Amino acid sequence: MAKVTTLVAVAALALTFDVRATDPLPTWNDTAPKKVIVAFVEKVTKEGSPDFVKPGERIATFDNDGTLRAEKPIYFQFQFAIDRVKALAPRHPEWKQQPPFNYILAGDMKALLAHEKSMMALMALSHAGMTTDDFNKIVKDWLHTAKHPKTGRLYTQMVYQPMLELLAYLRANGFKTFIVSGGGVEFMRCFAEQTYGIPPQQVVGSSSKMKYEIRDGKPVLLRLPEVQFVDDKQGKPIGIEVFIGRRPIAAFGNSDGDQQMLEWTMGGSGAHFVFIVRHDDAEREWAYDRKSDVGRLDKAWDEAVAKGWTVVSMKDDWKTIFPK
Amino acid sequence: MAKVTTLVAVAALALTFDVRATDPLPTWNDTAPKKVIVAFVEKVTKEGSPDFVKPGERIATFDNDGTLRAEKPIYFQFQFAIDRVKALAPRHPEWKQQPPFNYILAGDMKALLAHEKSMMALMALSHAGMTTDDFNKIVKDWLHTAKHPKTGRLYTQMVYQPMLELLAYLRANGFKTFIVSGGGVEFMRCFAEQTYGIPPQQVVGSSSKMKYEIRDGKPVLLRLPEVQFVDDKQGKPIGIEVFIGRRPIAAFGNSDGDQQMLEWTMGGSGAHFVFIVRHDDAEREWAYDRKSDVGRLDKAWDEAVAKGWTVVSMKDDWKTIFPK
Repeated sequence: MAKVTTLVAVAALALTFDVRATDPLPTWNDTAPKKVIVAFVEKVTKEGSPDFVKPGERIATFDNDGTLRAEKPIYFQFQFAIDRVKALAPRHPEWKQQPPFNYILAGDMKALLAHEKSMMALMALSHAGMTTDDFNKIVKDWLHTAKHPKTGRLYTQMVYQPMLELLAYLRANGFKTFIVSGGGVEFMRCFAEQTYGIPPQQVVGSSSKMKYEIRDGKPVLLRLPEVQFVDDKQGKPIGIEVFIGRRPIAAFGNSDGDQQMLEWTMGGSGAHFVFIVRHDDAEREWAYDRKSDVGRLDKAWDEAVAKGWTVVSMKDDWKTIFPK
Repeated sequence: MAKVTTLVAVAALALTFDVRATDPLPTWNDTAPKKVIVAFVEKVTKEGSPDFVKPGERIATFDNDGTLRAEKPIYFQFQFAIDRVKALAPRHPEWKQQPPFNYILAGDMKALLAHEKSMMALMALSHAGMTTDDFNKIVKDWLHTAKHPKTGRLYTQMVYQPMLELLAYLRANGFKTFIVSGGGVEFMRCFAEQTYGIPPQQVVGSSSKMKYEIRDGKPVLLRLPEVQFVDDKQGKPIGIEVFIGRRPIAAFGNSDGDQQMLEWTMGGSGAHFVFIVRHDDAEREWAYDRKSDVGRLDKAWDEAVAKGWTVVSMKDDWKTIFPK
């Protein structure tokens, strides 16, 4: 009997260990959001369930800034653009008088942020006039060296561990995971695959106009200083329609820029699920919502409350914010 | 001994049968193009080969009209637009005086084709003002009923059997297959998955501007009568960059509209391969090249000859044109 008991005990231990080892969302607290996510994934993947969705139709879209990674004190691509302007300034003496460049060169962040529209223009201008290959090289160099002003981490390390787990969990359940972000599509592709496991063709974002030409017998694509498409607010469902061509069954955002993507997802005919990440953890990350210049969460929050969409509290629902 | 001999004979027979059954390109003649294709696929998939390409980077792009399916006497989407104009004409008496509608209503195909730019405008106009869901429904109805004027087949049956085999062969070898076409992206998605096994997110095409709005509490996307992006000629490498974000290692086209896509693919740093389908089979399909209004092959052909790109002769290299 002693032997049998031992075996049972070992088996029980192994089982416990196994359950813990295979918890797909280990840095999520056992609060409501985790339960709702798991219940949703289980019902859409269970054959025979009335909510079953075929693998090819399990499309999940993620906003990037503020949803998959931090966005404070300013969007990271905005910081990249600022660093580019500073690097290029010696060749552009006229920028000292020209908004928004003059704000950057004078270090006046408040004036710069007050002109929200200048951000797209700034990014288009500072990223233009070079080939796509050169641009990718500059971005990758920056990603390997620039450090976040508050944490001292590389920007690629400012991602949310619980969201990395969610990405992996969905993919393990036959979902295709996409980024759908207002950020520049080519900028994001410089880190999306390595950081999130999301390949280039599953990154939807804003884009510049481009020009194709032959230089020294080799074809190149040149970035032009004009915006082709803005993948934000109502641009998100449009970007989803044009790039993906299928309505997501799950979508995740954190700000008013995601509101239309979440509405579009909730308007689908089959099972669907969305949540909003709420930045309410001033200690471990940042706390901001209705009045923030960056990542404002105001109208989308009201809609989430009115319609009962899940709101994830970084403070209460996540054990960890950043990867170790 | 008898038994052993029988077994060997059976094994030999099985082996022969197996080799024949697994010819991945059975409707391709054993001419140069088939050999080049197979050699290319083998070298990029063989681990340790200097030409090995990781599966995620095995991107293959296919033009649609004239490459995956017929495009004569006119592009099929153009025929769809014409049918739409005829259906909508009673509600638009002004069209009788207004080009290009008046050409259609008078049955003057020559005048219509002479205004090549009118085609994009016609498609944008005739496809506009409706929700994306309504548009998809109209396209699907048309695809289920409209017949090709010469063959009497449904338009979805006017695809090339050898190209279906090539698509399947590449996918079986870890390639991701994309359509990159001047055709409307949403139009193509109505048949691409069923016809070619290409899911919506792997279809790159021209697009209209859209508008997001809430109608009766439900979000809709409305098609506007303005072109957002033309995925043709220099637009093809741009479309590849914006939608796919990775340079193809293989690309297939048939006309001058594909020239830049083929150049862009051949400009890659690793192994790469392209071919042009030549329409030289007046008996089984159509024969046309330098002077055709539809699918003109002139400059791209010169470049193919000058640079030694593979040119596939439909007459000599394909055993069959359309599926049985």
